[in-house]
Amino acid sequence: MKHTLSVMVENKFGVLSRVAGLFSGRGYNIESLCVAPTIEPSVSLMTIVTTGDDAVIEQVCKQLNKLIDVIKVWDVTGKNFIDREMVLIRVSARKDSRDEIMRIVQILECSVVDVGENSLIIEASGDDARIETLLKMLKPHGIRELVRTGKVAMLRADQKKA
Amino acid sequence: MKHTLSVMVENKFGVLSRVAGLFSGRGYNIESLCVAPTIEPSVSLMTIVTTGDDAVIEQVCKQLNKLIDVIKVWDVTGKNFIDREMVLIRVSARKDSRDEIMRIVQILECSVVDVGENSLIIEASGDDARIETLLKMLKPHGIRELVRTGKVAMLRADQKKA
Repeated sequence: MKHTLSVMVENKFGVLSRVAGLFSGRGYNIESLCVAPTIEPSVSLMTIVTTGDDAVIEQVCKQLNKLIDVIKVWDVTGKNFIDREMVLIRVSARKDSRDEIMRIVQILECSVVDVGENSLIIEASGDDARIETLLKMLKPHGIRELVRTGKVAMLRADQKKA
Repeated sequence: MKHTLSVMVENKFGVLSRVAGLFSGRGYNIESLCVAPTIEPSVSLMTIVTTGDDAVIEQVCKQLNKLIDVIKVWDVTGKNFIDREMVLIRVSARKDSRDEIMRIVQILECSVVDVGENSLIIEASGDDARIETLLKMLKPHGIRELVRTGKVAMLRADQKKA
């Protein structure tokens, strides 16, 4: 099952390597991971998306909690949470396909952030469905490059943290 | 100096831990890191923002290139590139401050993705300046929670990859 974990850590070197090591030590792949500082610059927040057996993920969470520099771990899976990611897409855009690409950009409310002679860079953010739709619509034009942030997650207001 | 590195890797367990280990082994902190699959599911792309001496970062890049499962490394620093991040912000929103928050959301073209009794979750993406402006404008209302993806980067069309 797919799990989304939020891990609050001290912003110190070595934390990321130890956290990632806990997953790889069990042969678990991290599908996506984002880490960046919070409002408090000495504290960073990681969002980790991984797939695995529920019981094993629970064990991993317990072990994460024991790591030095890990402040708190939440598994938001199964809770009512927002998850979003951002992507940059370099798409081929010849003269005759540019209009159609601009229509896709308008319909899906994303934005063009760079214009080249034969390509455009499109920035888009949203949930899985939105990003997948955009990629599907752009695919016939030729996606040359794709960078995804990976997901960040936040519990909805009606959810209490465990 | 601040460096932005793009690291293309095989999507296998252990890669992230090894890459992060190279930085921590030198006492270098990673300010932000995103890793997620590309169009080719077996290949992931990391974007790493770190601060350090130019010569040492060059050395780190060389060592990254030697790691198993690392396909390619670019230091885009100093090149003409797009960098963007996405944030989710939980802001306090009482009845009397909701209108003003909605005005900020409109002006900065971000979106409200969850509405609670006393708070809102705002989604925003953009460059440093935009995100910092938003945070500054929301601060007086009370930022309860902040999750950032960290930056992703893409070279502009007029730039050749080294």
